[in-house]
Amino acid sequence: METYMPHRPARYDVLFEPVRIGPVTAKNRFYQVPHCNGMGRAFPSSMAAMRGVKAEGGWGVVVTEQCDVHHSGNHQREIRIWDEKDLPYLTRATDEIHRHGALAGVELAHNGSYVGNLESRTIPIAPSLKAVRGNLPITARAMDKDDIRAVRRWHRTAALNARRAGFDIVYIYAGHDMTLPVHFLSRRHNQRTDEYGGSLENRARLLRELIEDAKEAVGDTCAVAVRFGVDELMGPRGIGSEDEGRDVVEMLAELPDLWDVNLSNFDNDGQTSRFSDEGFQAEYVKFVKSVTSKPVVGVGRFTSPDTMVSMIKGGTLDLIGAARPSIADPFLPRKIEEGRFDDLRECIGCNICVAGDKASVPMRCTQNPTMGEEWRRGWHPEYIPPKDTDDTVLVVGAGPAGLEAARALGQRGYDVLLADRRRELGGRVTLESRLPGLGEWARVRDWRLTQLRRMPNVQLLPDNEITAEMALEAECSLVAVATGARWRADGVGRSHSFPMEGLEGLEGPAGTPVFTPDDIMAGRLPSGRVVVFDDDHYYMGGVIAERLAEHGCEVTFVTPDSLVSSFTQFTAEQKRVQRRVMEKCAAVHTSTALVRAEPGAARLACVYTGRETVVTADALVLVTGMVPRDELYTGLRAFGEEALGAAGIRRVVRLGDCLGPGIIAAAVHSGHLFARTLDTAITDETPYRRENVELDWDQPLPASSGGAWGRQEGQGHGR
Amino acid sequence: METYMPHRPARYDVLFEPVRIGPVTAKNRFYQVPHCNGMGRAFPSSMAAMRGVKAEGGWGVVVTEQCDVHHSGNHQREIRIWDEKDLPYLTRATDEIHRHGALAGVELAHNGSYVGNLESRTIPIAPSLKAVRGNLPITARAMDKDDIRAVRRWHRTAALNARRAGFDIVYIYAGHDMTLPVHFLSRRHNQRTDEYGGSLENRARLLRELIEDAKEAVGDTCAVAVRFGVDELMGPRGIGSEDEGRDVVEMLAELPDLWDVNLSNFDNDGQTSRFSDEGFQAEYVKFVKSVTSKPVVGVGRFTSPDTMVSMIKGGTLDLIGAARPSIADPFLPRKIEEGRFDDLRECIGCNICVAGDKASVPMRCTQNPTMGEEWRRGWHPEYIPPKDTDDTVLVVGAGPAGLEAARALGQRGYDVLLADRRRELGGRVTLESRLPGLGEWARVRDWRLTQLRRMPNVQLLPDNEITAEMALEAECSLVAVATGARWRADGVGRSHSFPMEGLEGLEGPAGTPVFTPDDIMAGRLPSGRVVVFDDDHYYMGGVIAERLAEHGCEVTFVTPDSLVSSFTQFTAEQKRVQRRVMEKCAAVHTSTALVRAEPGAARLACVYTGRETVVTADALVLVTGMVPRDELYTGLRAFGEEALGAAGIRRVVRLGDCLGPGIIAAAVHSGHLFARTLDTAITDETPYRRENVELDWDQPLPASSGGAWGRQEGQGHGR
Repeated sequence: METYMPHRPARYDVLFEPVRIGPVTAKNRFYQVPHCNGMGRAFPSSMAAMRGVKAEGGWGVVVTEQCDVHHSGNHQREIRIWDEKDLPYLTRATDEIHRHGALAGVELAHNGSYVGNLESRTIPIAPSLKAVRGNLPITARAMDKDDIRAVRRWHRTAALNARRAGFDIVYIYAGHDMTLPVHFLSRRHNQRTDEYGGSLENRARLLRELIEDAKEAVGDTCAVAVRFGVDELMGPRGIGSEDEGRDVVEMLAELPDLWDVNLSNFDNDGQTSRFSDEGFQAEYVKFVKSVTSKPVVGVGRFTSPDTMVSMIKGGTLDLIGAARPSIADPFLPRKIEEGRFDDLRECIGCNICVAGDKASVPMRCTQNPTMGEEWRRGWHPEYIPPKDTDDTVLVVGAGPAGLEAARALGQRGYDVLLADRRRELGGRVTLESRLPGLGEWARVRDWRLTQLRRMPNVQLLPDNEITAEMALEAECSLVAVATGARWRADGVGRSHSFPMEGLEGLEGPAGTPVFTPDDIMAGRLPSGRVVVFDDDHYYMGGVIAERLAEHGCEVTFVTPDSLVSSFTQFTAEQKRVQRRVMEKCAAVHTSTALVRAEPGAARLACVYTGRETVVTADALVLVTGMVPRDELYTGLRAFGEEALGAAGIRRVVRLGDCLGPGIIAAAVHSGHLFARTLDTAITDETPYRRENVELDWDQPLPASSGGAWGRQEGQGHGR
Repeated sequence: METYMPHRPARYDVLFEPVRIGPVTAKNRFYQVPHCNGMGRAFPSSMAAMRGVKAEGGWGVVVTEQCDVHHSGNHQREIRIWDEKDLPYLTRATDEIHRHGALAGVELAHNGSYVGNLESRTIPIAPSLKAVRGNLPITARAMDKDDIRAVRRWHRTAALNARRAGFDIVYIYAGHDMTLPVHFLSRRHNQRTDEYGGSLENRARLLRELIEDAKEAVGDTCAVAVRFGVDELMGPRGIGSEDEGRDVVEMLAELPDLWDVNLSNFDNDGQTSRFSDEGFQAEYVKFVKSVTSKPVVGVGRFTSPDTMVSMIKGGTLDLIGAARPSIADPFLPRKIEEGRFDDLRECIGCNICVAGDKASVPMRCTQNPTMGEEWRRGWHPEYIPPKDTDDTVLVVGAGPAGLEAARALGQRGYDVLLADRRRELGGRVTLESRLPGLGEWARVRDWRLTQLRRMPNVQLLPDNEITAEMALEAECSLVAVATGARWRADGVGRSHSFPMEGLEGLEGPAGTPVFTPDDIMAGRLPSGRVVVFDDDHYYMGGVIAERLAEHGCEVTFVTPDSLVSSFTQFTAEQKRVQRRVMEKCAAVHTSTALVRAEPGAARLACVYTGRETVVTADALVLVTGMVPRDELYTGLRAFGEEALGAAGIRRVVRLGDCLGPGIIAAAVHSGHLFARTLDTAITDETPYRRENVELDWDQPLPASSGGAWGRQEGQGHGR
């Protein structure tokens, strides 16, 4: 498909300089920092393949997610290096990474009071007595000196095992308020009165010892890196880059072989594009290079080669760290190397990847539908099998599903017509990207249009409303209906199974006009006192409220959930979203449902007690659910198989929101799946490789288990 | 240990009559109904061993948790029977169940719109368009006729595979508002206009077909059971036992071989003892036997043999169904059979088992510390290895940890002294069981005291405050300090890392008195306007508020969480808890922290915006966290190893809340662990067998995957 000549201006050469990291050398400055992915030890083959693809895409360093060193700090989702049982899949990952010339790093971690050890049932440990994170009814106990020695021993053993598994870089993870070394550093966690508490030097003692231990154990052949959150954005209550965050780096400046620095906690480090711009961490981490001679890596959703160069040349960073950009485009380094700038598939900063991890499933990516599918479906982000049928394809609707379907079909060599009723392509992506904070989401459209416009076998037909009759005459053997969905105006959603009372006739003089997100996005905005009812719970309700408040409306936000935009917990932005919505709105009613519309008012009810209240409303905005815009599909199906066959159509399918309304990532995935399989029907066979827990029934009991299952055999029941 | 003669009065004989279920026969009327357990396919050996122990304990039928039939209805935690890959561990489970003479059942399920298919990424399916449960941004699409045929095919294939795996009873699961057949039944879910929608006969069509298909496929050798929730407790909005719930059973009365009937959804079926009594479902399900000749099983936290007999003789049930009682005491049937009524370890109805499942870890049980540990630690609920050292043990504190340690050590044959400072034994269990709704929790104490009082080698020493000096002279080689924890009065908890401002000197004339749960449980109650600050998030804050309201206080409930008692989501009672707290309290402020105490007032702040408000308060009750009561432990350690050695003490350990304050189940587990291992230190070695995902790298790609990973090898990067 690539008919243009790659060309890389010399100013980007600096990105391809090798960087020495202790005893090892990264081939370039592209550094995939540790990131969770929802695969971990539950989907180890998926995890290994995903890391390998990053290496293939040109990243000089590829690091794992956090890797537990011991059962007393057991994170449920991520990888482990408790003992030699973990080495096979970790070795598989390093083999995949090495195969493509990258260095492999491992982020060793003990999660202390960040975890409740729900699996191991071990009482968690902490520098000082501390309730574990969240709402778990578990208290971490204060560690004694034996415990500290044990943590050092576990880390050391893990480092040695990591080297056996082939890792080149061994991390001590002191970031995100998540691990023991940072808990020791933090005054909030550490109220000890011995040599591990009090002064910063004392509080940094464990971190120093862990670095020294790792260097002593594996430092001759492996680099020892520290991941450290230099600023918690908590002011005097936390670590700051102008006080203790800086002091820690100064104190330990030359001890590790590499500093991987960022904001803490994860909500700050992994900010979405709704709340941050590319390079947003630079101001906090730029001091690091001034106090250490060791290489420094930092992050900031870098996707612009020019920004990357400025980070290096400006002395902010030595290595361009990336988690999300490496997910959206595993081949980002190679594309820059080859000067294929138009091919860069930039992260949109939506954090749907984070949601996959938080839900303990292989993560997805809005921009990269192959993410998480590399091993299990055999999907590669760049390669796709050439066409193997004679089909020609009509794709109707150039939203995220249609664009991706047409693009991937075009890449396979199929002749494709892509029609859309609007002059401007992009569908919901175009519309939603104009809502507050969602501007970067337009990249989903832009990258695909750039690719499509290069494809001679794909014809774009904007401003073309395709009817069933037109589709029948299109001379295409496959018709993919990707016409999206509309927000419903009848109130049906999670709270109401049937149309809401009071909505009929509201448009009259005594009525209260009803709007949906489609109206708002089309520029039809209410005025005055507006009740926004969010029964959807992802971003739309909150964003619409923000848009209306900016427009001058007095907004009352109502949601049956106990949180504003509760699904944004999964995208690590809920606190910021709720704060913003509370600041912008006149009132926010959580745990409250809209019962029905009344003239000039909305009747609300507490979801627990049923207690009703009435609020005045000049307009209602209903964010309750979407209905597929599937008239074309049903129209075509109504012709019957015979008529379709006579027209040369062997299959009519729905894609994306037209099949099942959801998120943009699901629409892109649906379009890609269709391009690969030419169908979207559910198959009887599981369409991906499964990862299964080994039945290892006769494994011997650990000596420390206190059990003797075997002894009961044949003893009868009188025990 | 059993020195008394078992004896069973004849009136219980009816419980041990065999029951014919289609082509198979249960040996007695004890029926372990399907229940989730947090092991499932992630911990398949644990799951199989746990089921086997139930069979060994005398249950005539042992059924799995729900078992997905297809990737389009993929529940993340439970077992699957998608294809033959699942048969090895399922066969292991049926082997274990059969080994002890029980029938093995499997609960086949397709979860429809109850699940988001986050792993498989398949668009969920439903009778009519429906947003999936909770806050997932996914919409299930309306099924067409092909989809309905496919669901029938998947169920049929699953039934055949279930028989191959050795199951004797195959379920069609139409319960808990969780599966496709019940979604078709429900008017809330089903708005179809074809022969699968409209009349109840039409809505029941899929359920009827699934039963018929299963009977046709495997009915010659396997029983076909239906699990059906006869009442949703939703009034006219849902299925009720006096309307459509009854009509469904009447309509299909003789079609299945067994009716497994209960309340729906799970929050109603699995009510805690705080909200329901033994047998609470009888009134709803008793009609079933009057309309069918087939055997009927129902549940209701049955632990009383007399209640069980009355259920059979009164014509309510044919089989005594149990989930939670079989977890608390897997040997319940055998103990009744042998007339060992004092040995029955009764479920306390706390639902901490449910919490394990919801957290995707092997479930725990407050009463049965071996639950989930059968395979991985080799722990048996009845058998424990006899003593293998010459130790004598002083256990100080007869709360849940101390009682269980002394009991299990006594069972092993160790000489044990169990001392408590109070005259009344039981520690926190005794105190908490007097709080509103927690009465059944006293069973934790009562069962253990009954066992201990029979043990000649265990000496109970109530009313004995043991000092370090006394412990030194006790002539015991092991000292276990199980002295519990105290609720803190300094405000430290999740919101405050340091003592809260304003608490000093509050006891003076101008001050606001501060109380803790310990005060309330000791009978020291405030009066007037009381602010309860819950920074703990499990049951205590809500229960204390309820207690104070009953006492006549005007209670303002304040919590930084967005939900009242948010952890009770895991015990499936949060909605009931919040409703009750809202009804009992004058005001409930969620997402609000107590900033500081002020004279006669409490200063609160919104956790999102920081906006402060002041509420008047005659008293504050702080439910923020617990501190170990470990003075005896630190006192003994202060003597030094040498002095301890000279006194014959080789080890001093802490148990339960004294080690790490938490839930009662954790305390019991801690006591049991100590009794088995004589230590509570963290071991370097993982103290249990691990279950690991197989690295199956070279598994062939499914034909329907659309992938071709292999093809990219050696093609260079120009793709």
